[in-house]
Amino acid sequence: MTVDGIKVFDATLRDGGLVNDFYFDDQFVKALYKANIEAGIDYMEFGYRASKKQFDPAKFGKWKFTSDEDVWAAIGEKDPRMKLSIMVDVGRTDFREDIKPRNESPIDLFRVATYIDTIPEACEMINYISGLGYETTCNLMAISKCTDEQIAQALYQLAQTPALAVYIVDSYGALYPKQTRKLTRLFHNILSPAGKEVGIHGHNNQQCAFANTLEAKELGAKWLDGTVYGMGRGAGNCHSEALLGYLDGKKYHVEPILNLISEWMLPIKQSGIEWGYNTSYMLTGLTNQHPRTAIAATKKKDTQFAEQLKFLSYQ
Amino acid sequence: MTVDGIKVFDATLRDGGLVNDFYFDDQFVKALYKANIEAGIDYMEFGYRASKKQFDPAKFGKWKFTSDEDVWAAIGEKDPRMKLSIMVDVGRTDFREDIKPRNESPIDLFRVATYIDTIPEACEMINYISGLGYETTCNLMAISKCTDEQIAQALYQLAQTPALAVYIVDSYGALYPKQTRKLTRLFHNILSPAGKEVGIHGHNNQQCAFANTLEAKELGAKWLDGTVYGMGRGAGNCHSEALLGYLDGKKYHVEPILNLISEWMLPIKQSGIEWGYNTSYMLTGLTNQHPRTAIAATKKKDTQFAEQLKFLSYQ
Repeated sequence: MTVDGIKVFDATLRDGGLVNDFYFDDQFVKALYKANIEAGIDYMEFGYRASKKQFDPAKFGKWKFTSDEDVWAAIGEKDPRMKLSIMVDVGRTDFREDIKPRNESPIDLFRVATYIDTIPEACEMINYISGLGYETTCNLMAISKCTDEQIAQALYQLAQTPALAVYIVDSYGALYPKQTRKLTRLFHNILSPAGKEVGIHGHNNQQCAFANTLEAKELGAKWLDGTVYGMGRGAGNCHSEALLGYLDGKKYHVEPILNLISEWMLPIKQSGIEWGYNTSYMLTGLTNQHPRTAIAATKKKDTQFAEQLKFLSYQ
Repeated sequence: MTVDGIKVFDATLRDGGLVNDFYFDDQFVKALYKANIEAGIDYMEFGYRASKKQFDPAKFGKWKFTSDEDVWAAIGEKDPRMKLSIMVDVGRTDFREDIKPRNESPIDLFRVATYIDTIPEACEMINYISGLGYETTCNLMAISKCTDEQIAQALYQLAQTPALAVYIVDSYGALYPKQTRKLTRLFHNILSPAGKEVGIHGHNNQQCAFANTLEAKELGAKWLDGTVYGMGRGAGNCHSEALLGYLDGKKYHVEPILNLISEWMLPIKQSGIEWGYNTSYMLTGLTNQHPRTAIAATKKKDTQFAEQLKFLSYQ
């Protein structure tokens, strides 16, 4: 199993934060950081740096607005074995005010998340943030809603930025392995000549997050997202422990993540924080739609799945 | 989406029976039968016909020993839209005594399940049962433990029987999509010249059951197993509803299965019958081992996953 150039990326605080409004116990964050380093994880994402003008800090935990100081407080000294990341959404971050130059920050990488219709803004952010000395990637969300032509146009624009990689982000958990392979090829064909790599961020609505991640890797994707125990919006993500187990060897080690699951993830789930596959999420994945109706159904314990499908089919 | 020649096969009573000792409510069996017909399912498996000399009928529900009379009682008249099946394990069935000629039975197909080391016995059973007028298939269990050479030898022998198809049975949930494709090709190469088809029966230990089923289909597998809500041993199976949703169209319909989940499967699960993905099952899949240790761990709520992996790694 070659892991040459692979970057296993832990997005637990970021995608997981979407299901607990970014309220994580400080001790958990420290434990996650330590476990990720021991597991050989290449990058750990410390949530979002969202605009405090747009979102009320009183209504969310700090990892929605992650400051450099929050990160320092969590990690103490920086461990050179693992790089650190923060996600910034196009239109939801004050990137010109809120990002200091890299040499004043613990952060190595900013991931710029965008929908297909705001690529120029994403490019602008990537260029600006790269200019501060950071690594950047672009995370192309809701990819299953885009045509190949739209994607190609976006990739040609992104290929001209300093972004290291562009991610296939299956926000709706709608992709099957075959489609993932097709997209990975399309991404590669346009990005490789520009010296850029491909990433994959799966959602588990149809229980394909892990399988799709493996398929993208098989075709050369290098940036592989996982979250511990799959913690993430709706049906959650590719489980880091499944991915690390698959890659396990000299570089990656699954045991630290298994211990983290035993000690932290199971209690977090038992406390009532909800994520993971269920039939409602399967149906939004199947119909290629935002999981919001499934999240609502799950919250109110609505299990009338045939009715849910009927509703989704008319969207 | 072509479904030409596809046989969607419901194994709920059979693989699901492994988690409730085959005790199913009679009303559930009737509801399942009706839902399967409405969903366009091609075959429904009515459990096993195990030897009553080897297994105590007082300790299991009737669907472990399924008689023709049990089936008639459940279905009333036979609906021509769906064929009926029973599984028989090599060495665990009194097939010479317990199977009447097809024209006296509601059953259309017997699936002969075997490990790699009892292929001659499987061939003998297939020949005998086919001689009674039934369709037969062979289900090659624990395929992830077999070498390509062993598999090829087995397939050459099975190619000379009247079996319609041979199944890739991923008993340990150890296969990844890539391996599934490789196996499907190997099966095809040997079986196609003999006019036989390939089947796939997945287990969800690594959340690949559905993805693997799609990949096998992609490469021409025609017999696709599912169970409603994934009910089956350990981590369970490919979910019928995911598969039907994927195939949905003129022939297949997911709604009847969604209703069955709402009305029956959720209450069955809430009653304490356990199946479905968890981290213990992921680890037996990862280490390519029988799920028995994970079943035991799940039962006693042992969540020391790193210890479980250590134990499995020394097996």
